Amino acid sequence: MTASPAREVRIREVGPRDGLQVEAPVPVEGRVRLVAALVAAGVRHVEAAAFVSPTAVPAMAGAADVMSALEQRRDDGVTYAVLVPNAEGARRATWCHQVTFTLSASPGYNERNVHMSIDRSVDEAATAVSVLAPRGIPVDAVVSCAFGSPFEGDIDPADVNALGERLLGVGVTTLTYADTTGMATPRRIADLLASTGPDVGLHLHDTRGTALLNAYAAYGLGVRRFDTALGGLGGSPAVAGEPGGAGGNLATEDLVHLLDDLGVTTGIDLERLLDATRLVAELVRHAVPSRLAAAGPRARTSPA
Amino acid sequence: MTASPAREVRIREVGPRDGLQVEAPVPVEGRVRLVAALVAAGVRHVEAAAFVSPTAVPAMAGAADVMSALEQRRDDGVTYAVLVPNAEGARRATWCHQVTFTLSASPGYNERNVHMSIDRSVDEAATAVSVLAPRGIPVDAVVSCAFGSPFEGDIDPADVNALGERLLGVGVTTLTYADTTGMATPRRIADLLASTGPDVGLHLHDTRGTALLNAYAAYGLGVRRFDTALGGLGGSPAVAGEPGGAGGNLATEDLVHLLDDLGVTTGIDLERLLDATRLVAELVRHAVPSRLAAAGPRARTSPA
Repeated sequence: MTASPAREVRIREVGPRDGLQVEAPVPVEGRVRLVAALVAAGVRHVEAAAFVSPTAVPAMAGAADVMSALEQRRDDGVTYAVLVPNAEGARRATWCHQVTFTLSASPGYNERNVHMSIDRSVDEAATAVSVLAPRGIPVDAVVSCAFGSPFEGDIDPADVNALGERLLGVGVTTLTYADTTGMATPRRIADLLASTGPDVGLHLHDTRGTALLNAYAAYGLGVRRFDTALGGLGGSPAVAGEPGGAGGNLATEDLVHLLDDLGVTTGIDLERLLDATRLVAELVRHAVPSRLAAAGPRARTSPA
Repeated sequence: MTASPAREVRIREVGPRDGLQVEAPVPVEGRVRLVAALVAAGVRHVEAAAFVSPTAVPAMAGAADVMSALEQRRDDGVTYAVLVPNAEGARRATWCHQVTFTLSASPGYNERNVHMSIDRSVDEAATAVSVLAPRGIPVDAVVSCAFGSPFEGDIDPADVNALGERLLGVGVTTLTYADTTGMATPRRIADLLASTGPDVGLHLHDTRGTALLNAYAAYGLGVRRFDTALGGLGGSPAVAGEPGGAGGNLATEDLVHLLDDLGVTTGIDLERLLDATRLVAELVRHAVPSRLAAAGPRARTSPA
């Protein structure tokens, strides 16, 4: 981190977790290979798995095996995070690098996704912190549906920020706000950041084709941390059946392509990242949503 | 036009032309019905057909029949434009509302698309103007590959602007710059506008998932005229075989959805526009690329 923060963005790759969670299960070996390909491309932050019920999310079965295999790579300078939905998950993560704790600003979504009230989720987050903080394990709280939900529609940015403040109050290290169902717009991004300030992560989905636009708008407002998934894969299983609910993540290659063009450092090599995207397309056995991945980067000079 | 231009955008719908040109041919009746659905949604500028060889572009066969049918609607306050690639096309358009004249800033693309040099295209544009101007028919010159091409890579904005100046010099009424192969970025948009100023139209393609982002960046720099195609259909037949060449247009619904959220007037009703998108999906017999069309507009309030 020698460059000015103004020209540097930290990308957390969530493809091995969010990107795969609605896919047919990929074996542990393939998921570890995928992470290795991402790291080879220069990715330095990976959300690699989720400690959730394999009955609820079959694609995340073997999460401990994935995290354990990555534990062998501790020396590569990469932060491997595991997502947990409750204190029980946190207790399983006491040997991991970093934990992302998922809860929602939408009461309806929180009930559907983690089967509890928001108040209860905050209590669980407090317990998670009490287990993890003494071991020096940072907890990033990821607040889903921070820009609205299919259940409540728009959610007041003041309420979202108040939830963030409560989470910081119980000791979480950092906050990430997620647009789980693709309801953010540049205006809504600006509204939330007016409450929270720019020192937050954003986790954007492309349900309505606005993920890259929203990232650009947020970058312009000072945000320097983004979650992305290679290929633009992903989506929430909790709303996969809702009209307009699920939708892929902001594609890592789309954001890197944009930031490269703006002269912003990510540390990620686009061509090698596209190798990883080709690998994930093989692993999930279908084309990925990213249009950039299909078309290739813009040619700066003649290929001839 | 009572609102301030700063909060108003003129959308020219090119779906019936650019949107359909790489599709299996849709009968004239269906294309006229599609235009009627667009007009019912509030669209006031339509590029409805192209006077080009039906051998080269089978989907544009019957263009005169389409334009003639629309001619019966002269009183509806809508501008119906026809695209022409040369003076011969212009001579066929002497009874139309408006003509868009296509040529390219890329020598390679111009040869492939209209089979002549750029100099020759400018001469043809001059002849087109000499035929049309006395009849009071405005000519909008659409400069394709204005942000680069698969043949030459980046094209210098100064060269693109010089071509625009030559076209204004031979009497074209307005200029539109097209990102035919999806090579624009916010930086490239800013670079070109620094040469041309903001009083231009932009015609953006989503080959690399950047169309809406580029429109947003251009809006922020003062551009108030955009070409779009419902559903995000379209793409250039001239580069349909090139890797990373063809790609759909900026989707009309995506831009209206964004501008509605920003409080910018377009005159287009999003729900009725989505009716037109459903119609075009029926006509072309496949789902359209727009993710917004699939997901539906963001819910502002609970659907319950």
